[in-house]
Amino acid sequence: MLAGYLHRQSSDFLRSLRLHRESGSDAEGAGEAARRLRRAARRISATLHTFRPLTEETWADQLLAELGWLSGTLGREQTCAARRERLMAALTRLTGRGERADRPDRGTRDAGVARTAPNPADRGSTASAPGDPDADAVLSAGAARAGALLDRQLTLARTRAHSAALQALGSSRFHAVADSVAVLASEAPLAHAAAELPAADALLPLADQAHRRLAEAVAALPLARAGHPYNAEALAVDHRQDAPWHQVRLLVRLARYAQEVIAPESADLRLADAARALDSHRAAAEAAAAAAAAARTPRIAPATAYALGVLHADQRHHVEAARFAFGRVWLSRSPERPAWGDAP
Amino acid sequence: MLAGYLHRQSSDFLRSLRLHRESGSDAEGAGEAARRLRRAARRISATLHTFRPLTEETWADQLLAELGWLSGTLGREQTCAARRERLMAALTRLTGRGERADRPDRGTRDAGVARTAPNPADRGSTASAPGDPDADAVLSAGAARAGALLDRQLTLARTRAHSAALQALGSSRFHAVADSVAVLASEAPLAHAAAELPAADALLPLADQAHRRLAEAVAALPLARAGHPYNAEALAVDHRQDAPWHQVRLLVRLARYAQEVIAPESADLRLADAARALDSHRAAAEAAAAAAAAARTPRIAPATAYALGVLHADQRHHVEAARFAFGRVWLSRSPERPAWGDAP
Repeated sequence: MLAGYLHRQSSDFLRSLRLHRESGSDAEGAGEAARRLRRAARRISATLHTFRPLTEETWADQLLAELGWLSGTLGREQTCAARRERLMAALTRLTGRGERADRPDRGTRDAGVARTAPNPADRGSTASAPGDPDADAVLSAGAARAGALLDRQLTLARTRAHSAALQALGSSRFHAVADSVAVLASEAPLAHAAAELPAADALLPLADQAHRRLAEAVAALPLARAGHPYNAEALAVDHRQDAPWHQVRLLVRLARYAQEVIAPESADLRLADAARALDSHRAAAEAAAAAAAAARTPRIAPATAYALGVLHADQRHHVEAARFAFGRVWLSRSPERPAWGDAP
Repeated sequence: MLAGYLHRQSSDFLRSLRLHRESGSDAEGAGEAARRLRRAARRISATLHTFRPLTEETWADQLLAELGWLSGTLGREQTCAARRERLMAALTRLTGRGERADRPDRGTRDAGVARTAPNPADRGSTASAPGDPDADAVLSAGAARAGALLDRQLTLARTRAHSAALQALGSSRFHAVADSVAVLASEAPLAHAAAELPAADALLPLADQAHRRLAEAVAALPLARAGHPYNAEALAVDHRQDAPWHQVRLLVRLARYAQEVIAPESADLRLADAARALDSHRAAAEAAAAAAAAARTPRIAPATAYALGVLHADQRHHVEAARFAFGRVWLSRSPERPAWGDAP
């Protein structure tokens, strides 16, 4: 079971690597190959991590570290591109550009309201109503400049990441990783003790442990608080508030891939949903950090800084929304043992 | 019924006025008296508006306009004070000052997470994690300056509003309003036709109309959208998106006070909840506008503008939260006629 899974993922890894080499100047093909390479690397890493006692541990630990380096290096370019896209989309949304097409119901809605009579007792206090054209113009100008600034910074980061990835792919360190994965594809170096046990006896306790660790980490999350929509928790400055969620994201991944090893046919869709929510949690948290970092650029205009502040808060609210979504997914799971644990 | 209600509210108005005069230099007493004065003025206005066909219309229209002027003038000071308080509280929350006391569970939560092992494959990508001390320091400094700026601007506005209110209370225009209300307290000038009809026949159709107008205006609101938590709608720049909600707020008030006239003993708590949600909707919208306006102050530092942007977005998310809360209150109401309509 374990050897078969590692064999499949390693073959995927090597196939993606070949595709990447052959893609040459085809950027899209190279990007797709890198994505699949990382996908396989994630699964190999998680499997070696969860089932470490069944492998030759020194060898596994070393491969784990090297796969971590490789995934990080290859992933950074795509992460920068996705972050740039996310922030540009948010700025477009915030300034309402390209909005008319989305809202054909605007006219009727306003007409419905115009019919009702205003209460004269309240006219005086709407002088400072939001959204006056002045304010919009300022936000719009600031947003355009903030967009240009972020574009510059993230494109630069992306270019750097691209060079680093190319350099990594040509390095002897990378070839050593590829060799190790090739070993994994032909014959996984499992511990001798493991080979003598029936697969279920050896694998299930370790997969169970991955699920248990996840459950414990989730139990420590402030899920009750996150379950109240608009709790405004994520915007508060607190160095450590994201870390437990990022940690749970990694544990979800471990549990999910352990389940792929044990029961590949019964994929836990809710675990996949939880992973998606926490991926978007991290993307939003990092986009918010990028906006905050851009605001520390020297000599930017106040309007630019203002737009970056709005953008930062917007992304932090996406962080909060992702926590809410995760809570809903998680609490809809039955609190019992995972399905595959009952009848393996 | 109508005359009795107007009599009670007018007496309240005159009593509050006396209290206000007698409070002299007692600022708290004066504030409380002004609040009660406005409370009575709101109810008189709403009643004259809803049951206008039963009153001497020219007289009622004039009093309505004058009460609107008075409420606006007297209310502005309190509104400025409340807005200042709201924004200062938000800044405190955003910068996490005075936070330690609120969260005794922090230690245990972190401990629970520390137990789980990290996944080495992911270490590389957390370099830009949010909340690094640098970012906090910038936000903190900016927030302090933004707080000082808002404090200055809103205190100035409040002082101006205070002077305007004092001036209004000494004006002959105000004495004319007080005289009109005194007439209302002794003998409401109702139309002759109204006096001949049974109270229920005359009042119910008009109160029903107030409820119907409210229902129509609410039906035109994008409630389905607002019912999805974290729809991120309120942050988008759109001159007109708040107006329908403010309008519904006024219509809720009219419906609520009409019900007080008809069936004072069966207060509709959900209508009161809806009013509260929409009051907080407006307070947040105006606080967001105040933050945006402060960001247009010439020559502010980028860090200040950034903090104001965060603050603006935070308040716009409170706008969104208030819409969500209103939707929950409203949709929990039965879609039938109001309770008092069944057995008057």
